[in-house]
Amino acid sequence: MGAAAVGFGGGGLLVGHRIAEADDGTGSVPFYGEHQAGIGTAAQDRLHVAAFDLLSEDPAELRELMRLWTVAAAEASAGEMVGSVNDVPLAPPEDTGETVGLLPSRLTVTFGFGPSLFEKPGLGLAGKRPPALRPLPALPGDELDPSESDGDICVQACSDDPQVAFHAIRNLARIGRGVVAMRWSQLGFGRTASTSRSQDTPRNLMGMKDGTANIRAEDSEDMERFVWVGGDGPAWMRGGTYMVTRRIRMLLEVWDRASLQDQERTIGRHKYSGAPLGRHDEFDPLPLDRHRNGHPVIPVDAHVRLASAKENDGARILRRGYSFTDGVDESLGELEAGLFFISFQRHPEQFVAIQRRLGSLDALNEYIKHVGSALFAVPPGAAPGGYVGEALLA
Amino acid sequence: MGAAAVGFGGGGLLVGHRIAEADDGTGSVPFYGEHQAGIGTAAQDRLHVAAFDLLSEDPAELRELMRLWTVAAAEASAGEMVGSVNDVPLAPPEDTGETVGLLPSRLTVTFGFGPSLFEKPGLGLAGKRPPALRPLPALPGDELDPSESDGDICVQACSDDPQVAFHAIRNLARIGRGVVAMRWSQLGFGRTASTSRSQDTPRNLMGMKDGTANIRAEDSEDMERFVWVGGDGPAWMRGGTYMVTRRIRMLLEVWDRASLQDQERTIGRHKYSGAPLGRHDEFDPLPLDRHRNGHPVIPVDAHVRLASAKENDGARILRRGYSFTDGVDESLGELEAGLFFISFQRHPEQFVAIQRRLGSLDALNEYIKHVGSALFAVPPGAAPGGYVGEALLA
Repeated sequence: MGAAAVGFGGGGLLVGHRIAEADDGTGSVPFYGEHQAGIGTAAQDRLHVAAFDLLSEDPAELRELMRLWTVAAAEASAGEMVGSVNDVPLAPPEDTGETVGLLPSRLTVTFGFGPSLFEKPGLGLAGKRPPALRPLPALPGDELDPSESDGDICVQACSDDPQVAFHAIRNLARIGRGVVAMRWSQLGFGRTASTSRSQDTPRNLMGMKDGTANIRAEDSEDMERFVWVGGDGPAWMRGGTYMVTRRIRMLLEVWDRASLQDQERTIGRHKYSGAPLGRHDEFDPLPLDRHRNGHPVIPVDAHVRLASAKENDGARILRRGYSFTDGVDESLGELEAGLFFISFQRHPEQFVAIQRRLGSLDALNEYIKHVGSALFAVPPGAAPGGYVGEALLA
Repeated sequence: MGAAAVGFGGGGLLVGHRIAEADDGTGSVPFYGEHQAGIGTAAQDRLHVAAFDLLSEDPAELRELMRLWTVAAAEASAGEMVGSVNDVPLAPPEDTGETVGLLPSRLTVTFGFGPSLFEKPGLGLAGKRPPALRPLPALPGDELDPSESDGDICVQACSDDPQVAFHAIRNLARIGRGVVAMRWSQLGFGRTASTSRSQDTPRNLMGMKDGTANIRAEDSEDMERFVWVGGDGPAWMRGGTYMVTRRIRMLLEVWDRASLQDQERTIGRHKYSGAPLGRHDEFDPLPLDRHRNGHPVIPVDAHVRLASAKENDGARILRRGYSFTDGVDESLGELEAGLFFISFQRHPEQFVAIQRRLGSLDALNEYIKHVGSALFAVPPGAAPGGYVGEALLA
């Protein structure tokens, strides 16, 4: 409801958000399209992501939920208020109102379906489950908390304004009340990867540039090859992708006691420039075969070596991570903080293979713990009048 | 350390943050001055606040802590790296590095001392305790969690960039390791009050404009009268103020089921315009004496009536609140979210009197719970070469 309307008692002139198209973090990103937004979109600054469990096994209820969520997500993405009943005195407003007057701030809302959704007999989806959508295997070093993992449906809201991202999750949760229950949610305050060549590489909470070697949306060949599902998936997943989320707790006090040299050798990059060890520019290729005094310049257990495409049979993933902090870890008396890792890939195995190597060998393991994990099948985008997941659920 | 320096191995050219003075949320706010920054400063968009408990009762250790914290806070506020050892390969960097390349983003760091600090015999501060610095009394409706309340020393970091605010708290925590332990911390993602006439009134998570009647820094007479301690306090508090923090959980799902009319009558303002009920403009005075059909236009239990200066013997406070969300309340299956309330006042009794009325009578109580509470004496600002609290601790 973007139009002005006369409010109750003469006091409230109802004004939706202004919609701007400027590329300064205030404009709107189209919701409808071939792919869902929030994957190839240049990574916004803030994240609010939530996983929901379905309380119903009625396929009609799930269809109606996705239909309502699609409409609401499209309204919010356009900078409009959700719903149409927002100025009726005796009814609760359909939109909760905290973004009135704010700009769309490049909000994207991205939906995914977890493996558990396909295991509910009443929904009858078992036959449509892609072989790729199995729960992630146990991975070396996992210390997962089930209450921070998995979920039937995931909603990722990204925006340059955290209040706009929060508003999207909250209003979808409200629309879903009685049909879904929120299982976990995470606020990310700072992005830790770039997904567009227009963006500088940000720093994570270890103070290191993060995501230098990420796929960029402009690399359409890499997007097709590594991110978007093609003829290999079921028809309802064509143009979709698989989303992995990992809540990675950083042991910052341990990291902070490591010397600069140890930090740089752990990652394999210089801290301030982001250049690979032994190189000068952030975007110089990794000198993986170079030695000095008989030792590899990039240590054998350095994070960038083990995560590199070269050491992973060419496999790459599209990362979209965010820094988080959730107060104090009372057992340690220190900040509970880290990286909420999100990656999109054509097949979950791309992530699994990389993480299996990292989990076993990565020097970084001394400083991190994977405490949450989830996998979702992200269907392609919807067309106006349709809804996300329609080809699966209809 | 703002100057460039050659890093290890030829890779890292060390670059501090750029320092800008523009008024667009990227510049720097002077740390040193008559008053501490972060009180009269136009409220920044993001908050990270933490309370620490002192592990030592050695006055020299507390003095050294405040001296080191003052220097680090001033460096961070100026957009410089903390410390001088940041490019020595075999030493841990003194600055954790996650703001390298970021702008100062109007960072302010504000320190306060809790009542409990004055109760540690070894520190010998009992005789310097202001009579005003007693723990807040039990207030109607309190449901306080001690682990989210109180603390010996408070550090409030506000910035327009959340990573800059996080960096300040983290680096101070690191400097204080072994001398203080973090008791609680809170991230606030959206400001819910304006403290300057240059700012629009933001909306809280109830979708209501919040802080319309706040004191503004430009109102120097009100600042002197209601915020800054004068001859009434001990000499070490002259130019300081008292800080109250309240973690206020909002029961958003209950609120969201209330009709627009109920929401507006609960607050006493129109939701969209922010105008008082029965008026048209946000800044119209409250028509507290006006009746319609025999009933007051602003209900007797409306929040704005009970909080108004007129109904509180003229008492006012300077508010600096932030919205928060901390994931899922598992007992309710809904977002754990609300308002982290901060107020500054010349005497805590200003807050206590207002909250006593609100806690007993406010229609808003149906939708909120106060779950955290703290009080701190905020000393005046420091001069370059001095440190915050010097007149108390020296």
